[in-house]
Amino acid sequence: VSLPPVELAVSGERFAATYRLHGPLALAAERAEAIAVEQTIEFPADLVGDDDIRRHVIGRVEAITAVDDEHADARISYAVETTGFELPQLLNVLFGNCSLLPGLRIVGLEFPDPLLARFPGPRFGMAGLRKLVGAGDRPLLASALKPMGLSAAALATMAGAMARGGIDVIKDDHGIANQVFAPFRERVQGAAAAVAEANTATGGHCLYLATINGPADEVADRARFAKEVGAGGVVVLPGLAGHDTIRMLAADPGFGLPIMAHPAFMGSLVTSDEAGIEHGLAFGTLARLAGADCTVFPNYGGRFSFSTDACTSIADACLRPLGPLRPILPAPGGGMTVGRIPELIRFYGSAVMLLVGGNLSRGNLHDNARRMREATEAAVAGGPTETGGSM
Amino acid sequence: VSLPPVELAVSGERFAATYRLHGPLALAAERAEAIAVEQTIEFPADLVGDDDIRRHVIGRVEAITAVDDEHADARISYAVETTGFELPQLLNVLFGNCSLLPGLRIVGLEFPDPLLARFPGPRFGMAGLRKLVGAGDRPLLASALKPMGLSAAALATMAGAMARGGIDVIKDDHGIANQVFAPFRERVQGAAAAVAEANTATGGHCLYLATINGPADEVADRARFAKEVGAGGVVVLPGLAGHDTIRMLAADPGFGLPIMAHPAFMGSLVTSDEAGIEHGLAFGTLARLAGADCTVFPNYGGRFSFSTDACTSIADACLRPLGPLRPILPAPGGGMTVGRIPELIRFYGSAVMLLVGGNLSRGNLHDNARRMREATEAAVAGGPTETGGSM
Repeated sequence: VSLPPVELAVSGERFAATYRLHGPLALAAERAEAIAVEQTIEFPADLVGDDDIRRHVIGRVEAITAVDDEHADARISYAVETTGFELPQLLNVLFGNCSLLPGLRIVGLEFPDPLLARFPGPRFGMAGLRKLVGAGDRPLLASALKPMGLSAAALATMAGAMARGGIDVIKDDHGIANQVFAPFRERVQGAAAAVAEANTATGGHCLYLATINGPADEVADRARFAKEVGAGGVVVLPGLAGHDTIRMLAADPGFGLPIMAHPAFMGSLVTSDEAGIEHGLAFGTLARLAGADCTVFPNYGGRFSFSTDACTSIADACLRPLGPLRPILPAPGGGMTVGRIPELIRFYGSAVMLLVGGNLSRGNLHDNARRMREATEAAVAGGPTETGGSM
Repeated sequence: VSLPPVELAVSGERFAATYRLHGPLALAAERAEAIAVEQTIEFPADLVGDDDIRRHVIGRVEAITAVDDEHADARISYAVETTGFELPQLLNVLFGNCSLLPGLRIVGLEFPDPLLARFPGPRFGMAGLRKLVGAGDRPLLASALKPMGLSAAALATMAGAMARGGIDVIKDDHGIANQVFAPFRERVQGAAAAVAEANTATGGHCLYLATINGPADEVADRARFAKEVGAGGVVVLPGLAGHDTIRMLAADPGFGLPIMAHPAFMGSLVTSDEAGIEHGLAFGTLARLAGADCTVFPNYGGRFSFSTDACTSIADACLRPLGPLRPILPAPGGGMTVGRIPELIRFYGSAVMLLVGGNLSRGNLHDNARRMREATEAAVAGGPTETGGSM
């Protein structure tokens, strides 16, 4: 022992992660202890005395359970005080340094209510979004303004056609940032105005979400500008901006608009079965913890290779109880078509935001948007839909 | 074709990524074309006319090269204008959506000087850091203040002992954020004062780097506060804060201090050979592009499992020519000991910042810091050192 004993005042409240360890079962206990140290004191444990750092600050291995011959689940709990009640440090305790260890994947997360209550959570969530767009309990319909290269005026025209056709949520494509083709302010102002005009014409409540991917010192300004010119919300890319950018906006009553999370640059968290963070936790739980109201992810059977199990897990994580945090809408997309809508509603039920992007431009955009709305209403009217997956 | 033809003014300057595709070679060409579309227009390519979106905005597959029976390298170039000259969107074009595709890893990045010139780059880099601490051309020595749970006063005492012993760079551990044990302001003020006092006593130039991991809307304030109370620089965790937080600080002349990048939460980019971004690009090139002056990574043979090849690649990426961007210092750490210093200097040469953390507290901290400095000077005096790996 090298350090003098330390006394600390801690609440006793703890949160936990379950790490699935790939490798010899005989090493699981030792690896779990190493993770508990790595994620907290990152210091030789034998130099810490019999004190409150050892009792409370070092992570605690609560259980080790064999999963199969090559995998064991290590459930490790941490004192809520290790997070400083700040989201980046919470993520750091869960997965900061141990993300660099081989053969380790987070498959479970548990947060006590007193910790969750320190974060704003989704301001609208599923129920709030449905109310904003007047959708009752049917699935919400979303589409994206693209391709990159179109002018702000051309994107605004698309937005108007989609809104008149009955799309509920229109977002800038995640790759539409602040390019010379359609600079941020011009583009957001134009799309917001076009959607407002369409809403006036139809009596509808379509929301336009401005993608605010940009410099760290301009993101808050972009969100404020979007609100000022009438955008209905924003799209944030937490893999690039950090999850705390969502938290910052969700916590700001002066902003007060819905937030969509987009998974760009986050794929490496899920593409390996032996690394990263399980799909539902990565795209559902973390988005919700940050305060997103809906979360985009690649649907099964599209351009990406997510399994139906992965999609079910994400939808579950969006909807299941999570302390005081509202349920949010899963938003599967990526190469979807109007023709697949009945199938998607059978799979996800009505608690979903269906995202059909580029394929809506195949032919007449307005007519396709109308068909998308009609297909959804018909599928819902066709009888009670399943509540997808394990829900 | 569904869109009217678009004319665009673009410079013709392009940047490129090489994606290593795992899977049947016969599919490589088709997969490469899909990536070129995904990362730019994300829109059915057959709906785009024979226009400037097709000619300039859609990524261009420049070459496909078989690597072995299961891997092919696809080199894809993009117009610099697709980035809007903003770092988050540059990263989005390189790896935003395609991070979600299976069997794809970035193994090469090429940036033309006109694009690199739009970013501030490292303000100090290797040469600037050496000058600040008065190290000549020897390796720099770094250590970390920890464990979490110590008071601000105890951490300040550690900092003073390390500085008097001859450590060049003392950072807060990456997990020391804003916990009640040692709140940010109190801790940074205390450590900065202790290092200043030690510098006065020794005539040395030790730098204290404050870890500013925290809420998105407080990071800039924390950096400013750290500077005001005499910190010598900051530590940023780009996997949590976003790389653009580094860029923001590097570009700010009112800040003007060195920045250390820490790899927390970025591990999933490198832990699978078939996904993510190659080690040197992930921890060397991206940190340098963002404007970090040194970059921490897990050394081979420590608590993590990085190979010697991975470490060589990171050191290479820090040091090799990259347009107008200064070389930066690789900072290997993670379970290092003073005893390994001669070996580390043989491996990395002198262009390195050696990071010995918790093990420096095994016994008397000041004496161990002194031994670390002496071991380094002896190893350097022992004759010309290799310039590690392929450099």
